[in-house]
Amino acid sequence: MSKEDSGGIEHDPARLRGVVAAVLTPVDKEYRPDLERMLAHCQSLLAAGCDALGILGTTGEAASQSLDDRVGVIQGLADHGVPGSKLLPGTGAGNLGDTVLLTRAAVEAGARNVLVVPPYYYKGVSDEGLFAFYSEVIERVGDSRLRLYLYHIPQNTGVPISRGLIARLLQRYPQVTAGIKDSSGDWNNMSGLAGEFPGFGVFAGTEQYLLKILQAGGVGCISASVNLTAPLAASVFRAWSEGRTEAAERMQHVLTDCRKALQAYSFMAGQKAILAERLQDPDWSRVLPPLAPLEASQQSTLLALWADLERRLHAAA
Amino acid sequence: MSKEDSGGIEHDPARLRGVVAAVLTPVDKEYRPDLERMLAHCQSLLAAGCDALGILGTTGEAASQSLDDRVGVIQGLADHGVPGSKLLPGTGAGNLGDTVLLTRAAVEAGARNVLVVPPYYYKGVSDEGLFAFYSEVIERVGDSRLRLYLYHIPQNTGVPISRGLIARLLQRYPQVTAGIKDSSGDWNNMSGLAGEFPGFGVFAGTEQYLLKILQAGGVGCISASVNLTAPLAASVFRAWSEGRTEAAERMQHVLTDCRKALQAYSFMAGQKAILAERLQDPDWSRVLPPLAPLEASQQSTLLALWADLERRLHAAA
Repeated sequence: MSKEDSGGIEHDPARLRGVVAAVLTPVDKEYRPDLERMLAHCQSLLAAGCDALGILGTTGEAASQSLDDRVGVIQGLADHGVPGSKLLPGTGAGNLGDTVLLTRAAVEAGARNVLVVPPYYYKGVSDEGLFAFYSEVIERVGDSRLRLYLYHIPQNTGVPISRGLIARLLQRYPQVTAGIKDSSGDWNNMSGLAGEFPGFGVFAGTEQYLLKILQAGGVGCISASVNLTAPLAASVFRAWSEGRTEAAERMQHVLTDCRKALQAYSFMAGQKAILAERLQDPDWSRVLPPLAPLEASQQSTLLALWADLERRLHAAA
Repeated sequence: MSKEDSGGIEHDPARLRGVVAAVLTPVDKEYRPDLERMLAHCQSLLAAGCDALGILGTTGEAASQSLDDRVGVIQGLADHGVPGSKLLPGTGAGNLGDTVLLTRAAVEAGARNVLVVPPYYYKGVSDEGLFAFYSEVIERVGDSRLRLYLYHIPQNTGVPISRGLIARLLQRYPQVTAGIKDSSGDWNNMSGLAGEFPGFGVFAGTEQYLLKILQAGGVGCISASVNLTAPLAASVFRAWSEGRTEAAERMQHVLTDCRKALQAYSFMAGQKAILAERLQDPDWSRVLPPLAPLEASQQSTLLALWADLERRLHAAA
C-alpha cells in the first residue's frame, strides 16, 4: 500500500457521514437492472437529502445479480452523472477474485467507498480466515483511494464481524478500514463499536437508531427503508448537525415509528410495490428470484399503511 | 424445453449412481485452481473406483472461487480428458445470470449432470421464489441434455430444499430434475425423499449412509471424505450391486467409522493436509480464504489418526 494508508484517520475528507439509502434495484422482465429507473430513483434520493447511496447491498438484491450486471450498475450510474463520492457500492461477492473485480470497478468509477460483506457460505470461520480474505482484497485492489466498510449482517450471512477482526484490520490498514454497517439490529453491538474505535465510521443499519448512533459517536445510518423515509431521516441528521436536539428527537420519534411499521414487510418486495404505486409504474414492483412479490392481500394492507405513514413523514419533516 | 423433457425417468441412461467424491480443489499461491494437481487427483479418484466426481461443491471451495476460475476448472478438466459423463460440477452461484453461465459451460463441456445450490443470501424465502429461480435456470439453459441435482445443505445455506419444491420441479421438468444431494445429515429426510419420489436420484451427502440409502431406494453418496475413502466406498457399492449384502455391511461398518473420525476436522483443511503429507507436496495443503489451515497441533493429531484409518480402510476394502 502507498504511504497514504497511514496517519490520522479522523480528518479524512473522504469519510462518509449522514443518511445513506440502501438503494432498491429496479429490474426489467429479464431480471436485469433497469438503469434508467434506477438512475431516476438515485437522483430522487439525493434530492430528498440523502448523503450517499448504498447501492447493490441487501436491499439492492445484489446477491441475486450476476457479476456483469453489478459492474454495469456501478459504471452506469457513474457514467450518467451520479457522483462517485455519493456512492457506496456493495462489492462483496464471497470470493476473492470477483470481490476484487467489483471493488476495482467501483474505485475506478470514482466510488472509493465500498461495502464488503464477508464470505458467507462457510460458517464458523475464524477471524484469521476473514482477516486473510479482507487483506487479500485490499492488497489486490492496491489503491490508496479505497475506503472499505465492513458489513455486519449475521442474520443473512451467519458470519459476524467481530471486534477482534476490526481491530486487526484497523491496525494493518488504518486508512482503508473506514467503518462498518451494523445491520444486526443489536444496539449494544453498534454503540459498543462506536465507542471502541474512534475515527472508525459506525453506521446503524436502521434509521431507527439514527439519532442514537450519532449521539454515541457513530456517523449515521445506511438503511433499507430510507428508500421511503429519506426526507425525514435527512431532517433528523440536519437538526442533529445543527445542534437542534429537541427538533431532532421529535422527528426521530416519527421516523422510528415509520421504520418499525415498514419492517413488518419485505423491504424489497414491499418498498418496490409502494414505489410502483407512487410512480404508477408496475414494472417497479418486480423482485429478483428467490424473492417473491407480496401477496395481493398483503400488498393492499401495506399500501393503505403507507398512505398513512407518508402523511406522518411529510408532516414531521 | 424440447420433447426429450418428458416421458419416463426411470430408464434415463444419463442418471448418476454410486460413489461420487466431492472433490477438493488444490490451489496455487494466488489462490487460483491448480489444474494440474486437480487433474491428477481426479484421475486417482476415478482409478479408486469413484463413479463420478462432484467438482466445485462445498468441499471444492467453489463459493470461494471466482466465476472465471470455476468455468476454467470445468473446461480444463474436460479438455484434459476427464469424461464429462463422470463430472457433476456445482454450478450454483446464488444469482440467475452466473448460475446459467456456469451451467451452460458444464453442459457444453459434456457435463450434463450439475449440482445447483439454492440462492443462500436471503433467508426464509418461499418455495415460490425458489421454484422461480430453478425454473429460470432450466429455461435459460434451454438444453434437453441438462440433468439438474438439487443441493440440500441447510447448515451452509439456511435455505432448505422442501419436498413441495421437489414435487413442483418434478412435475414441470420431470426429465431435468434428476435428483438431490442431501447433506443435512438427517437420515429421516433423505430416506423419506428416496421413498417419496421414485426415479428421483437421492444421494446421501455422507458415505456413512451409503448402504442404507441404497437399501432405501436412493442411488448413492456424494461425499467430502470420499477424497480419502474412495476405494472402500466403491467396494461397498460394488458389493451391494452384486447382492453381497454381508460383505457390504461389514465394509460399511469400517467406512462409517472412518467417516465419523474424519468429520471431527475441517474436510477441506484436514483432507488437504493429509494429501499434502501423502503426496509429499506441501502446496496441496493450501485452502482458500475464508477457510484457514489446521493449526499445527490439530494437524499432527489428524495425521496420526489418518495413519490408523488408512490401514483400516485398506484392510477392509
